[in-house]
Amino acid sequence: MSRNEEFLKRAEMLMPELRHKRVCPEGGAGGRSLRAGDRVCFDFGDHYVGYVTVSFSHAGAHPDAPAWVRFRFAEREWELEEDAGEYRGWISRGWIQQEEIHIDVLPARVSLPRRYAFRYLMIEVLDVSPKYALTVEAVEADTVTSADDGALAPYICQDEGLERIYAVACRTLRECMQRVFEDGPKRDRRLWMGDLRLQALANYETYGSFDMVKSCLYLMAGDTLPDGAVAACLFLEPRIEADDTKMFDYSLFFTAALRDYLNAARDTAAARELWPTAKRQIELAESSFDHLGIVRDSDRMGWCFVDWNLRLNKQASAQGIYLYCLKAAIELAKALGETEDAQRFREEYREKRAAALKYLRDDRGYFVSGGERQLSVASQVWMVLGGAAEGREAAELLAKVQAEPEAERMVTPYMYHHYVDALISCGERERALEVLRSYWGGMVAAGADTFWELWDPEDPGHSPYGGTIVNSYCHAWSCAPAYFLQKYFSPGREWINA
Amino acid sequence: MSRNEEFLKRAEMLMPELRHKRVCPEGGAGGRSLRAGDRVCFDFGDHYVGYVTVSFSHAGAHPDAPAWVRFRFAEREWELEEDAGEYRGWISRGWIQQEEIHIDVLPARVSLPRRYAFRYLMIEVLDVSPKYALTVEAVEADTVTSADDGALAPYICQDEGLERIYAVACRTLRECMQRVFEDGPKRDRRLWMGDLRLQALANYETYGSFDMVKSCLYLMAGDTLPDGAVAACLFLEPRIEADDTKMFDYSLFFTAALRDYLNAARDTAAARELWPTAKRQIELAESSFDHLGIVRDSDRMGWCFVDWNLRLNKQASAQGIYLYCLKAAIELAKALGETEDAQRFREEYREKRAAALKYLRDDRGYFVSGGERQLSVASQVWMVLGGAAEGREAAELLAKVQAEPEAERMVTPYMYHHYVDALISCGERERALEVLRSYWGGMVAAGADTFWELWDPEDPGHSPYGGTIVNSYCHAWSCAPAYFLQKYFSPGREWINA
Repeated sequence: MSRNEEFLKRAEMLMPELRHKRVCPEGGAGGRSLRAGDRVCFDFGDHYVGYVTVSFSHAGAHPDAPAWVRFRFAEREWELEEDAGEYRGWISRGWIQQEEIHIDVLPARVSLPRRYAFRYLMIEVLDVSPKYALTVEAVEADTVTSADDGALAPYICQDEGLERIYAVACRTLRECMQRVFEDGPKRDRRLWMGDLRLQALANYETYGSFDMVKSCLYLMAGDTLPDGAVAACLFLEPRIEADDTKMFDYSLFFTAALRDYLNAARDTAAARELWPTAKRQIELAESSFDHLGIVRDSDRMGWCFVDWNLRLNKQASAQGIYLYCLKAAIELAKALGETEDAQRFREEYREKRAAALKYLRDDRGYFVSGGERQLSVASQVWMVLGGAAEGREAAELLAKVQAEPEAERMVTPYMYHHYVDALISCGERERALEVLRSYWGGMVAAGADTFWELWDPEDPGHSPYGGTIVNSYCHAWSCAPAYFLQKYFSPGREWINA
Repeated sequence: MSRNEEFLKRAEMLMPELRHKRVCPEGGAGGRSLRAGDRVCFDFGDHYVGYVTVSFSHAGAHPDAPAWVRFRFAEREWELEEDAGEYRGWISRGWIQQEEIHIDVLPARVSLPRRYAFRYLMIEVLDVSPKYALTVEAVEADTVTSADDGALAPYICQDEGLERIYAVACRTLRECMQRVFEDGPKRDRRLWMGDLRLQALANYETYGSFDMVKSCLYLMAGDTLPDGAVAACLFLEPRIEADDTKMFDYSLFFTAALRDYLNAARDTAAARELWPTAKRQIELAESSFDHLGIVRDSDRMGWCFVDWNLRLNKQASAQGIYLYCLKAAIELAKALGETEDAQRFREEYREKRAAALKYLRDDRGYFVSGGERQLSVASQVWMVLGGAAEGREAAELLAKVQAEPEAERMVTPYMYHHYVDALISCGERERALEVLRSYWGGMVAAGADTFWELWDPEDPGHSPYGGTIVNSYCHAWSCAPAYFLQKYFSPGREWINA
């Protein structure tokens, strides 16, 4: 890995402190008595991230054997019906929020050392002796976030549905705002470049923590892969360290995120300092193209993320993402007075856009992807965002691909963010609002307190991991409505975007 | 409960401090790398009681998911093959020495908060992600006992088999010597009156911690049941508290234990102070007799313990135990100059002994028990110890009952202690030594580092609890050889007992 200690020092100085708040479950603990096999569920009333302490006592005779207790934390109530023992998926069972411990002496105040993401806590008595019952005297959580609730921009639009969608989106962002922008406080609890970009956009419009975005950008630039590529994600503990995972799209998004930060914070000094990192991402991506000017396709899972639809071919999306990020790089170069770079990237953009139009379109006008020329929504969305299709043509492309039964669909709110962005970019504001209402509103209708990592209305139990028990139900890449509603659909700001 | 705060204060002042010693497993940890599903077993080389710390690190890429780890502690290696999930017994699964925890950040130094009794530690990786392996860098135990290894009386008899039996017995006692004489450091980890009596006897001959016995006697006398009965056992945490369990034999044994303490320590002042408690146990037992002078039988499980043979009828044993403890009370009363009490107890003894001979014997001369006049080894043993049969007659009774196929057998080393004691009391020293060699030697041959709570050579997998996973394999009531070998079969001391 390639470390820039100056950047990392800067990042750590800008890192926000955590704000603590003590929260108890609704209705208190109430001294419920539990026998072997009994379980009790506590509802904290909203999604929280934090550390839980449970005070136990007993009823009946003096405990003559230790109590054996299981704690299960859930972001959604129905997770409590899932059985950890049945999960056979491909990502680690280590993510399942469950502990089994013994309590030797009662009364006992048990402070679980891990941080959990939860609304619900179930306590199951694996065993107590028949001579006594275990009683739960008190449950409390030391909750943490670095978001300042007092700084949250209000959203008032006289449409309760939209207001609720906005509130849930902001809650999602808030819970993911810890020392860094985490992708999800249950999983993976770390800084992913692709997620960061969307969180930053939502943050500018809501909590306005510019320094936190800046800190994260310096982190990503402060520890890169050996060739200078921005890593797909970064670990904070036990020390800052780039993951060895490289993804075509995530590395490139550093460029777009830096452009967004400059636009939001007007912090030219930071943009100038981080410009070489942004520029390097473009240069590295250049080597991924073939002689025709098309991104080389790959079978390696995760070479380019785009979406969690496992059937999706990523080639055309990658081409679109490259074009999108080139545009960002051109904007940055111009703003920083790097005219040579700007000029070179403009030529590169024209060349790769032309190649996309020439080689990645079928006779119906769709952008297609890979050797089998796969049709997908994602490919159209990214070609629109990359500027390969514009205006009326783009709007029609986005509308008609949704009606194609063979087109691969979108499965994450992450991809839906880009869909909404694409709709707005080609003037389809009404359609964009309709997607916010139906897609994110669908999660609200299904009981979401925070927006989920995955949501396919046609397949609500979908998990790319082989089991929903490891799904994250508070995932910041899903907080798009906080950004779009506030920026494009806020009654008081309509004149800005008119 | 009836508390005597003066007694409890005295007890706490006499309570020994724990001695700590750092112990590592044989061969060290060696940085073994573990993938999902892997397990590694550490052997500490001997039985220990203590607190374990494991240092983990990783090999491969930066951990991208928490490690999920199970720790299993075992006193005997074969326990590691048992499955906690399959245990369906009637005592609490809380006793199973097993934890499942998550490790979020590596490297990590995990200090498990519970105290365990173990020789073996198995670490199983429930899951890690495929990107890394969990490595165990170091394992160490902070072991505790209040026994002073330097004070242990040596036993040299030029018979390696007996020397080994003595060593294992002393190790058993040592491991159970904590702040009090625990019955077993795995289970129940507390002061039981019946166990205390045998531990005290072994202790006088080995570690010689008189104050520790004294402390335990004051504890038992310091918190009794409301009627003044000594409780079957006592809890230390969160504060000293008598269990509400009353057992006919265990209450009475306070009297015998006090007699033994007086004989060993010559501490007349303590014996005088505790005499009212001893006397009270005899008086309370008197109410358990019917008009014929026989202990009333009961169906209540545990009314009188005797042994873990669940088919055993306890009536005749209870009568013998009462006689045995009356003899102790008479000795005590005499030593303390309580001549009226001595006289009264002598009369009581003659009466109850006569009743036993009249109503509890069958026509073959055996003592029989209960409405169905059950034949058992235990009944003969206790009638011999109680003095209802003596000398040649007693020796023949003990010999021939062992040959009766329908006689209920003994299943615990606790009952075997009394069997050996009975043999010695009627002059069968050679037979007693043979039992020490065969019964306790049988456990040594089966790999015992410490003697077990239960050992039935004809049914080695016996558990009265419904599953061996909760059996205790270091149980102080099994340390009899430490007492008998040193007192009766020590070459240098033979002249004493000649």
